Amino acid sequence: MVVRKLLGLVGVVLLCWMSPSCGMPDPRQREDLIKQELIREIGGGVVLNEQEKLLDAKLEQLKLQDMSLPEFPPAMHFFRAKPLIEQSPVYSLLKKMPKGAALHVHDFAMVGVEWLVKNVTYRENCYVCFTDDRSVRFVFSAEQPKPQSHCSTWTLLRPLREKLNSTELDNSFIRNLTLFTEDPDTAYPNQDIVWKRFEQAFFVAYGLVTYAPIFKDYLYEGLRQFYMDNIMYMEVRALLPPTYELDGRRNSKDWSMRACREVVKRFKTQYPDFLGARIIFTVHRGINETEAIKTVEEALTLQRNFPDIMAGFDFVGREDSGRPLWYFRKALELPEEQGTPLPFFFHAGETNSEGTDVDQNIMDALLFNTSRIGHGFAMTRHPVVKELARKMKVPVEVCPISNQVLKLVSDLRNHPAAALMEEGQPMVISSDDPALFGATGLSHDFYQAFMGFGGMRSNLATLKELVINSLRYSSLSSTEKEKAIADLLVKWDKFVLQTLL
Amino acid sequence: MVVRKLLGLVGVVLLCWMSPSCGMPDPRQREDLIKQELIREIGGGVVLNEQEKLLDAKLEQLKLQDMSLPEFPPAMHFFRAKPLIEQSPVYSLLKKMPKGAALHVHDFAMVGVEWLVKNVTYRENCYVCFTDDRSVRFVFSAEQPKPQSHCSTWTLLRPLREKLNSTELDNSFIRNLTLFTEDPDTAYPNQDIVWKRFEQAFFVAYGLVTYAPIFKDYLYEGLRQFYMDNIMYMEVRALLPPTYELDGRRNSKDWSMRACREVVKRFKTQYPDFLGARIIFTVHRGINETEAIKTVEEALTLQRNFPDIMAGFDFVGREDSGRPLWYFRKALELPEEQGTPLPFFFHAGETNSEGTDVDQNIMDALLFNTSRIGHGFAMTRHPVVKELARKMKVPVEVCPISNQVLKLVSDLRNHPAAALMEEGQPMVISSDDPALFGATGLSHDFYQAFMGFGGMRSNLATLKELVINSLRYSSLSSTEKEKAIADLLVKWDKFVLQTLL
Ligand SMILES: [Zn+2]
Ligand SMILES: [Zn+2]
Repeated sequence: MVVRKLLGLVGVVLLCWMSPSCGMPDPRQREDLIKQELIREIGGGVVLNEQEKLLDAKLEQLKLQDMSLPEFPPAMHFFRAKPLIEQSPVYSLLKKMPKGAALHVHDFAMVGVEWLVKNVTYRENCYVCFTDDRSVRFVFSAEQPKPQSHCSTWTLLRPLREKLNSTELDNSFIRNLTLFTEDPDTAYPNQDIVWKRFEQAFFVAYGLVTYAPIFKDYLYEGLRQFYMDNIMYMEVRALLPPTYELDGRRNSKDWSMRACREVVKRFKTQYPDFLGARIIFTVHRGINETEAIKTVEEALTLQRNFPDIMAGFDFVGREDSGRPLWYFRKALELPEEQGTPLPFFFHAGETNSEGTDVDQNIMDALLFNTSRIGHGFAMTRHPVVKELARKMKVPVEVCPISNQVLKLVSDLRNHPAAALMEEGQPMVISSDDPALFGATGLSHDFYQAFMGFGGMRSNLATLKELVINSLRYSSLSSTEKEKAIADLLVKWDKFVLQTLL
Repeated sequence: MVVRKLLGLVGVVLLCWMSPSCGMPDPRQREDLIKQELIREIGGGVVLNEQEKLLDAKLEQLKLQDMSLPEFPPAMHFFRAKPLIEQSPVYSLLKKMPKGAALHVHDFAMVGVEWLVKNVTYRENCYVCFTDDRSVRFVFSAEQPKPQSHCSTWTLLRPLREKLNSTELDNSFIRNLTLFTEDPDTAYPNQDIVWKRFEQAFFVAYGLVTYAPIFKDYLYEGLRQFYMDNIMYMEVRALLPPTYELDGRRNSKDWSMRACREVVKRFKTQYPDFLGARIIFTVHRGINETEAIKTVEEALTLQRNFPDIMAGFDFVGREDSGRPLWYFRKALELPEEQGTPLPFFFHAGETNSEGTDVDQNIMDALLFNTSRIGHGFAMTRHPVVKELARKMKVPVEVCPISNQVLKLVSDLRNHPAAALMEEGQPMVISSDDPALFGATGLSHDFYQAFMGFGGMRSNLATLKELVINSLRYSSLSSTEKEKAIADLLVKWDKFVLQTLL
């Protein structure tokens, strides 16, 4: 009986093992087992054409070169690995590669902070104050803004820059807006501390990016930076906080949605091969039940009013310190009760804890019929969930650099996505909060995935499946997906030919 | 069709998902899915009696206490976690728990180094020399030993101790015999460096433990220390190098095997509830084909001459820098060709590399019909291998502290055994080289497994299955196993009752 079951898996090999008089392994049987593993992994079903095979051979050589370096970037902290990665020919190739869609990126962490400091803070009417805990806050205002507690008097930046060393000031702003530090292991000894810094950096950006004109410019610049990294479509998780005008007036969520629609439209006019962007409305998982019900109702209204640009709903913030999904079940049942569809894109399993309430999120996300799972770092610890996700075609959005910087894993060869990749689990690669980590678009994360947990087995076929996945698992309609994938494949073939030259 | 397949897995739940008119998750269905995950994991099939349930509840409380500490030991380096672990009531309980067998321990790394320094180096005729690279070597000799290159003149320790500060000298010996250091991240920035230190520590012990009288005393003391940690049986991977007498005369492997047999017998007279110990003969994986053939022939001779005490054969040394198993296939086919059984217990998959020749070891170990897999750290990256191992009932010998110290993984919650445990993969917990890491017996490793990758889900049932596994997957005959497990269960019940008092 056992043998019967195994025959599908290993053919004659096991029959042999089962017999006590069996000989030693036959190299052909060994080849067969190796092939069976190769077929299962992501890209294992992709058939490469002649040009692709040539590029794949070239890529393998480049990969071996990087593997033999004295310092292996995916094994190091990204802050120290980044300069090494950027020297790598594998990275150059991945930058040029059309990467399809970025499906897991947060508003306000899309644009390299240099742009915020060197462009945004140099605009008219930008005020700064310095907090008690050595951070900064910004606000745009037509007149002297109202004092903020635990912060110095608001100072207009333009005259301040004339008095101080502007470069030093800008560098201190940059430090406050990212998590970058020379010695991350000392600066961030544990998850609590790194998450605290993460949240603080968010507040620094907040005053800048919620100023209504900047909100639009920021989104435009975000699209541009991702587009320049060869990304053709985005789904942005957005908190949609009220934006403000110079006189302090506040705009509604509808204003933000219309702004997004307008910016995306304008961007597509400028870059016609860009397919577009959609919004996943998010709320912090610290809210209570009443607030959650109100928020889901808002989400339903947005979904009705902006069906073209609204993709769905999600919770954000650190899972380990937030409320578990099951706590919000009353709110999450509303769309079903009202008969209005509201797709979910839940962050789930972004945790090292096992067997806790929070660790249950990854199963509950599926029970609430999530379209994708943000991170799913805990998935390998949940074999039943893993099988369900596979059957339900729910992918994990793997964000390697985010998981490393936020201290879920240090050596990226140990990222649980290594196992998922070998098992051919539905997966897309994304970058979460690239601006906070000093990454750009998706290329740095693709490098970490491909070199780190991809290992020597992942190849051009793996990459091709991953980039197709990014459109296949997007919120686009099936007609849009078909067209998007066709467009991607045209770009892909061009990339293969150009890279071979 | 898909639904058919899934019914076994999730019953009615999925039928519901498949339908577009489906309602939100039913809490009972959710409970059912949670239960399905619990059943799969190690211990999921163990039925606890009333006393065990009480102890399990107590254990859960203790576990929660440790989980809520500001510093979580499995997330830290063992060298810093050790004092915290030793204060933990979970650890006290695990120390008292009968742990069955230690199946993956190396000769010369069994006994806490204090004993080597404070007892062995204080004996008559012990000489020391100091190497160019600030290490030491020892030898016992009736007269002034021949000079060793790159080492100072041999000095008799007894008079030296009278001249120097003996405590300082002993502490420096201890430092040389273990990997312990206050700041392991700085001292061991990568795997190459930590393995180099590992091998050097081995050479320091070598001159002491290969002195014939010490060889016996060391084994006896090793058995005693494991026995005191509530271990009832051991399989020791032993290099069986020539031991030497005071006049320099060298003894054969047969002498060593007879010595082991005699020591084990003597130990059992002293401690009648100890079941015994067997030897897995090992050789360094740096050898060439000719040497391997010679060694396997030696192993076959030992297997014929010492069937009571000889368990089988294995290769040792760092996999990433050694020859892959497949290289040795000619040697490994000898037992089959000669019709003499030689059980294999291969180290395999003790690597972060993926898709390399070395990464193939874990599959090849199974193809050569290994009885167990040492480490199998790479197993989750090999889904076909994982299924085969399961069907062939080949367990992985998981050594958490070793994997952390040798820098395969830093946060033990991320150890791949977490996934294997949840999937109920055959597994035993072991300690590899406890003396080098400052661990004792199996208790420290059990703590790391139970608290680290076991998470909140692992419980008394998990522990019970793990300790039974250690005998089930031993090299004992089926009759011996039956008796051993019965003995273990008597000890177990006593442990449960005493711990409840
Ligand atoms: Zn995110
Ligand atoms: Zn070992």
